[in-house]
Formats: sequence, structure tokens, C-alpha cells
Amino acid sequence: MATGGVRKRVLIVGGGFAGLKAAEALKDADVSITLVDRRNHHTFQPLLYQVALAVLSPNEIAQPIRAILRAPNTQVLMDEVVGFDVAAQRATLKSGVVLEYDYLILATGSTHSYFGREDWAKLAPGLKTIEDAVEIRRRVLLAFELAEGEMQETGRHPALNFVVIGGGPTGVELAGAISDIAKLYIRRDFKHIDPAKAQVVILEGSPHILGAYPEDLQKKAVEQLAALGVRVRTNTRVTDVQPGYVMVGDERIDAVVTIWAAGVKASPLGALLGVPLDKRGCVIVDGQLHPEGHPEIFVCGDLAAATSEGKPVPGVAQPAMQMGDYAGRSIALEVRGEQMKKPFIYADKGDMATIGRSAAVANVKWPFKGHLSGFPAWLTWLVVHIFFLIGFRNRFSVFRNWAYTYAFFEEGSRLIVGDQNLPGWDTQDDPEGHLTTRPISQS
Amino acid sequence: MATGGVRKRVLIVGGGFAGLKAAEALKDADVSITLVDRRNHHTFQPLLYQVALAVLSPNEIAQPIRAILRAPNTQVLMDEVVGFDVAAQRATLKSGVVLEYDYLILATGSTHSYFGREDWAKLAPGLKTIEDAVEIRRRVLLAFELAEGEMQETGRHPALNFVVIGGGPTGVELAGAISDIAKLYIRRDFKHIDPAKAQVVILEGSPHILGAYPEDLQKKAVEQLAALGVRVRTNTRVTDVQPGYVMVGDERIDAVVTIWAAGVKASPLGALLGVPLDKRGCVIVDGQLHPEGHPEIFVCGDLAAATSEGKPVPGVAQPAMQMGDYAGRSIALEVRGEQMKKPFIYADKGDMATIGRSAAVANVKWPFKGHLSGFPAWLTWLVVHIFFLIGFRNRFSVFRNWAYTYAFFEEGSRLIVGDQNLPGWDTQDDPEGHLTTRPISQS
Repeated sequence: MATGGVRKRVLIVGGGFAGLKAAEALKDADVSITLVDRRNHHTFQPLLYQVALAVLSPNEIAQPIRAILRAPNTQVLMDEVVGFDVAAQRATLKSGVVLEYDYLILATGSTHSYFGREDWAKLAPGLKTIEDAVEIRRRVLLAFELAEGEMQETGRHPALNFVVIGGGPTGVELAGAISDIAKLYIRRDFKHIDPAKAQVVILEGSPHILGAYPEDLQKKAVEQLAALGVRVRTNTRVTDVQPGYVMVGDERIDAVVTIWAAGVKASPLGALLGVPLDKRGCVIVDGQLHPEGHPEIFVCGDLAAATSEGKPVPGVAQPAMQMGDYAGRSIALEVRGEQMKKPFIYADKGDMATIGRSAAVANVKWPFKGHLSGFPAWLTWLVVHIFFLIGFRNRFSVFRNWAYTYAFFEEGSRLIVGDQNLPGWDTQDDPEGHLTTRPISQS
Repeated sequence: MATGGVRKRVLIVGGGFAGLKAAEALKDADVSITLVDRRNHHTFQPLLYQVALAVLSPNEIAQPIRAILRAPNTQVLMDEVVGFDVAAQRATLKSGVVLEYDYLILATGSTHSYFGREDWAKLAPGLKTIEDAVEIRRRVLLAFELAEGEMQETGRHPALNFVVIGGGPTGVELAGAISDIAKLYIRRDFKHIDPAKAQVVILEGSPHILGAYPEDLQKKAVEQLAALGVRVRTNTRVTDVQPGYVMVGDERIDAVVTIWAAGVKASPLGALLGVPLDKRGCVIVDGQLHPEGHPEIFVCGDLAAATSEGKPVPGVAQPAMQMGDYAGRSIALEVRGEQMKKPFIYADKGDMATIGRSAAVANVKWPFKGHLSGFPAWLTWLVVHIFFLIGFRNRFSVFRNWAYTYAFFEEGSRLIVGDQNLPGWDTQDDPEGHLTTRPISQS
């Protein structure tokens, strides 16, 4: 490639959907790209709950960023940004490396928010990373194991109540999948307990689950969840999370496993820019995705408080990809001496969420407009997710696993790794933290 | 099944090769079987090094024990034996459950031995469990990531020396696989370092690697390792393991990652029986696999100090399976009022070890006798391991992964999970233990 002078340096922070799409849009541009991420892998977050619930294994939905971005003009660094000097156009990394940039694309997404109760994090893990998914899988599967052991010892076991806090898409998908595991997939595995008696409940603070969906689909979702035996309690705000139970005001709800799907907050890297943030900590950007006064900076994905045609852009995968692509194309134009003329417009193709094995709701906006639910919605979900998975190998492998699980009612990835403790089961007499089976949430 | 009186209770401790084979041999017998294991999964240990080196993912070589043992007369408990009362024929579990048995099959295998230097365990992990494999993978892949970052900061990086302590089959297989990763699979991933410059060295205390193999195959193995660039140092006893290096007497050998493949010791459960042990802690058993004075107890697999036709039975997968099967069949005969007449005889089909991608050594004893090396040995290894893997799904999946890796020089499971530290890289200025890239083993 002919270079006129010194190549412009583009720094992309974050290897999620936005960061990858930005790098892809710039792969033939006359720039030098550095992508920095704390992890060595990109995670396909829409399928993370399937890792948590033992259908898929981590390597099927995550791939090394280096393996995805192989363009000659792109380098990948596994490191972490600890500070920006936006006046000097520099970022400092944890390792001490200082990177200068001509363009910065910041796309570090969001993380769990426990609304100031960070002590709940250990008791009610959320679902953002591969490690989170493996931890949730460990807890859910372990609950059945511990109950089976407890039956041997005492002839009874604590109720297998699984509590999902938050009724957004992640909460709904997790709840449906836990119900499937208990009722379909591990049914034949136990001799003393009946996994099908497990109860899954979604506790949602607002009046409706799937708040971003139209009302008719919210209703369909509740119906489909009910058909799976999942209880939905709306207007229900959790006031405390304890080992073995949660509190809703004065009411105590037993929980052998509690999962957090209630809130997210912006990545703390937005605040390092020193530009205006909204109350969630997201960086307020203009129509070109720039924070005020910084045409050389783009903020994309969940971290951006962006609007499209007057409406706020939601923090999900699709707009993140589109923003990353927009930022990349804008830079590609500028280094050729041209100018991106159009502001960022979110082409909303719709939203969908699965509800267990073969049901879903889909609010389709493109290529046609319509509300789907049940099996048609689920099929649509399946095709779209296979299509967007990165890498042929993963697509094939995920499809095979889904087909197998669907046909044989058996999941592919039911390993419990890590220790054998569950919050709420007695570990006092066990300083080493191995398997114990006496619940303290009962008796 | 018609039951004459009260069913005999068989307690199997350990879900490895021996325990599973014992349960399988008893699946149609008129007995009630309880299998206890600390983990929920069986691990196919011969392929564990391929998880450690990113070719396979954990769920391809491990499977829930419950999913394997579905016979109506068999129950599985995820728990841990903490004591035996052999006079009363009772075992106490960690959870407090007490299990009475008519027959006990103890098959809890072996664990790493650091020869009294347990402080080395964190610096030089061994390879026995899925967790071990994921930890070794994390360290090996992280070493390249940290070196890439270090190049950015200082323009140099510590030598990528990988030290494998121990030249048995596991050490040889790990060393060959690390060399493959560096030289073939991740070559294209880095812009600043040349992974192919990585050095792998095997430090073996005795005069020969692969001590159990005939001399000509030992030589072939050294040649094939040399062709991969792996150095083999025999008569080399490690005297200290430190972050970033190991000591052999006065000589210091830099090691960005150190792996322990030097010694195993018997599972501590053998000692709980109160019967004679050999100096490795293995339970001394007679020709019927019983410890002295206990015809109701069988000890199988690595934990047994057994002899077959006057020769000690080696602690590998094949004899473990055969012992488990023998114990199971013996009990099945006894409950029918018959008697196992033959002592246990180990039908040795030979041994093999792979040396990287497409080489191996095989000491074949059945169905023909012969020494294979190079590609024919590797092909034999491949067919045998696919055959013995449990479950069609795993067989298919592993085969597909191998074919893909072989054809496209790209591995399937290169995720780094867990934290971003490596012993020997400076973490002093980083109390949270995130990524740092300043090596303390240099300068």
C-alpha cells in the first residue's frame, strides 16, 4: 500500500463487537491500528448464557482476538488502559507502555452494576465474561449434586429454588435455560432427587419483563415462561441478597442459586477521558460519535450515550457493531482526505430473546416488520445467531451442539470446575472449602 | 431382575478408568452400586495434555460420571471419602454421610509428588485434572502475550524458555506440543515477537527419557524431539524451582513457564484403609487385587501395588481399566455364588507417546509385537485414542478438532481464562494482580 507520509495511528480500546467492527472497517485503510484488550479473546455475549447453562463450551463462543484480526496493519495487545491524556493524544497502559494516537476508538462496554451493593457480587454472580459463565454453570450444576448428597444424609434437601434477579433478555434467557436443564436434560442423572421439581423465579423491579419489547411480546414471554414453570414476579425489588436466600422487603425467598441480571453500568474507562458523562457513566457523544470537542475520539457500543434520529441507541450487540463500523469508516474516509457526511443512524433490525428450548420472542423490524413468538421466533433466533457467530469452525460446532442437545436431550458441557462450595451451604466445619452438604439456609 | 435376598452393596471410590470399568462390569449384576468421586466428571487423562496445549477443550475429554453410568443399579455421589472403618465395612464421606458396603473397590489413583517440596506446586503446575490443564494453557499462552507487550515497552523480552521437569510420557507429550504451538500454530498471531524462537527443554533426572520404553524407542524419541527443537537433558536433577527460573545444582535455567511432570504419589485414601502400603504409598494387593486379610476390598489402578505374572503392573490407563474390570467381574461372580478362579493378569498391549504433530513412539505388544516410531506410530496413537474416548459425541468432536488443527495449523481452544499473572513477572506495583509485563527474572 502506498503511504503518502507517516501513517495515522488508530488506537482501539476494547475487543468487543464495536472494537472488532471498527478494526475490520479499517483493515485496508492506510493506518496503523493497535487494539488493546484486557483479555486475549472476543466473547460472543449473546450466547454466553448457553455456556453458563452447559449447552456450549467456552471456546465455541470466544475466540482469540489475534486470530480474528490478522490484517497486516493491525496489532493486538493484551493489556489494559489506565489513563488517557486526551490533549497530548496518548494512552497509558498498565504495563507502562504509552501509546500515542491520531484517532482513538473507545469501546470498552459495560459491566455489572449492583447499585452500590458490590458485596452482593459474590452471592449473585452476573454474566459478562467467560469466567462468569463458568461460575454460574458450576453453581447451578453443583446445587443438584449437593441436593442429591443431602438426600442420602438426611432424607430431605433444601428446595431447589433458583432466583434470577432482573427480567431483561439475559434474565429471561437464563431462567428458561435453567428450567430446561432441570426438567429435560439432567432428569435421568439423579436417583434420589427429582430435578424437575426445581423452581425458577424471575424477580423484576419494574412492572414488566423485557422492558424494551412491545407489550404483546412481553405478554407472550410471560406465557411461555409460565409454560416452562418459570414464575415471573414484577414490581419486585430485591432489598438484600444473603447466602441461601434473597429478601424482598420483609419477604424471604429461598435461593439455592442466585443470579444477577438486573443492572449494568458503563465501563470506568469513559470517565478517564475527562469529557461529559450521563448518569449511567456513559460518554455523551454527538451525531458522529465524538465526545464534545474531540473529533479525533469516537466512543462506540454500550459505553456511548448516543442518539439516532432523536432516540437513544440501546446498549446491545447490533448498534455496537454498527457504531464500530461507522467509526472505522469515518477514519478511513478522513485519512483519504474525505469526510463522513452522514451522522450515525442506527438501523434497528429488531430484538429477540429465547425462552428455553424452542420458544422465543422476536420484535422484527427488518427485513419485514412483525412480532414473532414461540417456535417461529426461536427458529429466527437460531439462524441469526449462527450467522453472526465469528468463524466457520464455531458456527459448525455450535450448530452441531444445538442439534445434538435438541435431538437427544443431552447437553455437551456439564463439567463442574473449581471448588465445590455454594454460598448458603455450611462450610464452617470445612476450612479447606471442599464439598459439604449441610444447608444453613434450612433447619 | 429377580433378587434372592438383600442386594449386596458395592462401594466404588473414584471415577477414573478403574472405577468406571468396575461399575460397567457390574451393571447387570444383582448388586446396588454407589460410586463416589470428588468431581462430577471423569477425565480422559491420556488427552489432558491436549487441553493444556489448546488443541482440545475440557468438555471434549471429560464427561459427567452420571451421564456415563446410567444403569438402574448404580448411583453416583459427588462427595469425598474421609475415613474407612474396614472392620465394620463402612466409609464416611465429607458431607457426613456414612455408607456401608459389602464390597469396596478403591480406585482413587495418584496425584503429583513434589518430593517434599510442595511449595513448588504453584510455580510448576502438574497435569492431573481439567483445572491443571486450563492453568498450564493459561501460562503458556500468557507467556507469549506478555513478551509481545514487553517488546512494545522495552524493545526486548525475556527468552521464551519453557522448562518441562520430567521426561516420562507426559513430559515428552507436553514438550512436543509446546514446541508445535510456538513454531506452527501461533506464529502468525504476533507482530513483535517471533514465537518460533521459543525454546523447550526437558529436564530428566535419570539417564533416559521414557524410562519404561525399550532403548531403541528412547533414542527415536530423542531424535524426534530434537527435530522439533526440543532439548533433552538427562541425568539432570532440579534442585530448586523459583519464579522465572529453575536451578540444577549451581546452574540457573531461565524458565518463563515451568511444568511439573516428574513424579506422582499414591492418593492418600490408600492409607485410610490401615493395610500395608509400599514406599510410594500404594496399597499392596495379592493376585486377586485384595489387600491382606480383606477379600471384600479390591484396590485398582494407580493406587494398587499389584503384580502380574511376577512383574509390577505399571500405573497407566490400560491396567487400570483391566483391574477395574477384574474387580467388577469378581464381585459379579461371587454374588452369583461362584468364584473368580484366575488371578489378575495384565494383558499388556503396549505403550505409546506422541511427540508433537505427527510423530510418536509406540511399543506395540498386541495384536502384533513391534516398535513403531514417527508417522506410523502417530497414526496408531490417533486411532487408539479416538477408539477409547468415551462417547460418540466426544469421539466425533475430537476427531474433527484434530483434523482441523492438522489441516489448517490452527488450534481450537486458545482462550486465556483467569488472571493475567505469571510467576516471575513483576507484580509488585500491581496489588490487584492484573496484567503486568516487567520481568523480574531479567536485568
